[in-house]
Amino acid sequence: MKEIMAIIRMNKVAQTKKALVEAGFNGLTAMKAVGRGKMLTDLSELDKLDAAQEEVREKFMESILTGGRLVPKRLLLLTVPSDEVKKAVDTIISVNQEGNRGDGKIFVLPLADAIRIRTGEQGEEAV
Amino acid sequence: MKEIMAIIRMNKVAQTKKALVEAGFNGLTAMKAVGRGKMLTDLSELDKLDAAQEEVREKFMESILTGGRLVPKRLLLLTVPSDEVKKAVDTIISVNQEGNRGDGKIFVLPLADAIRIRTGEQGEEAV
Amino acid sequence: MKEIMAIIRMNKVAQTKKALVEAGFNGLTAMKAVGRGKMLTDLSELDKLDAAQEEVREKFMESILTGGRLVPKRLLLLTVPSDEVKKAVDTIISVNQEGNRGDGKIFVLPLADAIRIRTGEQGEEAV
Repeated sequence: MKEIMAIIRMNKVAQTKKALVEAGFNGLTAMKAVGRGKMLTDLSELDKLDAAQEEVREKFMESILTGGRLVPKRLLLLTVPSDEVKKAVDTIISVNQEGNRGDGKIFVLPLADAIRIRTGEQGEEAV
Repeated sequence: MKEIMAIIRMNKVAQTKKALVEAGFNGLTAMKAVGRGKMLTDLSELDKLDAAQEEVREKFMESILTGGRLVPKRLLLLTVPSDEVKKAVDTIISVNQEGNRGDGKIFVLPLADAIRIRTGEQGEEAV
Repeated sequence: MKEIMAIIRMNKVAQTKKALVEAGFNGLTAMKAVGRGKMLTDLSELDKLDAAQEEVREKFMESILTGGRLVPKRLLLLTVPSDEVKKAVDTIISVNQEGNRGDGKIFVLPLADAIRIRTGEQGEEAV
């Protein structure tokens, strides 16, 4: 049993929901978020800029610090049996992978338990 | 030490907060979300519809794909000592269990650590 | 690989973002939340109030139950390699620790996996 947390583009939510339902994943919670990825594969590259490039460096730092770079995203939560994690992840990737920065991230969190409030069912039964 | 994440109906937030405080759980974080449960106990039932029922199937798929089915919810987060998970879960169920779909879900997430920023206290001390 | 979830004051977001980038943590997701901490170090103190103090007790319970006590917060999520958890936590504390109730909390959640949607990279590579 795992909790899958996907942070995706807002314009991909409908398609992602559809793909998940078609793959058998119906339960879903969605939330608004703002975010940004790593932006530079290796920010430490900045450390290699010499004095003459100090201005470039300053500009970059300023741009990422102003906050304009946190773009609206949707955070999706779904709970899946452990042996269906790959299927759920692949489904999300199939819709969201455009090959651009900002395509998003998927996190897989261990889950100690899940309870369906209506019935009190626990564990895999509740997923 | 566990993180309890409960997804409940919006009109149950005040009562749930009250019940949690009365049970000794004061710290709480709440967030807006939209969500839906599994809806069908076994969506694979759909696969058994024959050709003549294709229209029913299409209608159902369409209805769950339009997005109208994601209803506003509240997501509550609270951190509890491991030996109080059952008490917290039971408290949430006691207020939210109406026996209807949409009553919500409770997830119990393992927690590697918790830190109170004000004091720097860690672990159980910070819960 | 860990997921760090920090619940901080709204007016600390810009500073926290800046400090995190400067410490090498660029990826970030932020969400709106409302919350409150424990308020009393030991709420059981209330149980010691005698009959004459019943009014004080009632007032206190009422005040925390009305909901006005859930104040707007920001929830930050960032994923870090396990050996950089302390650095990230210290960075967040350095900006947010004012020594007052409401300074916030930091939670460290174990992460089973992380996937960068753009490339399909998994695990530490994706963080």
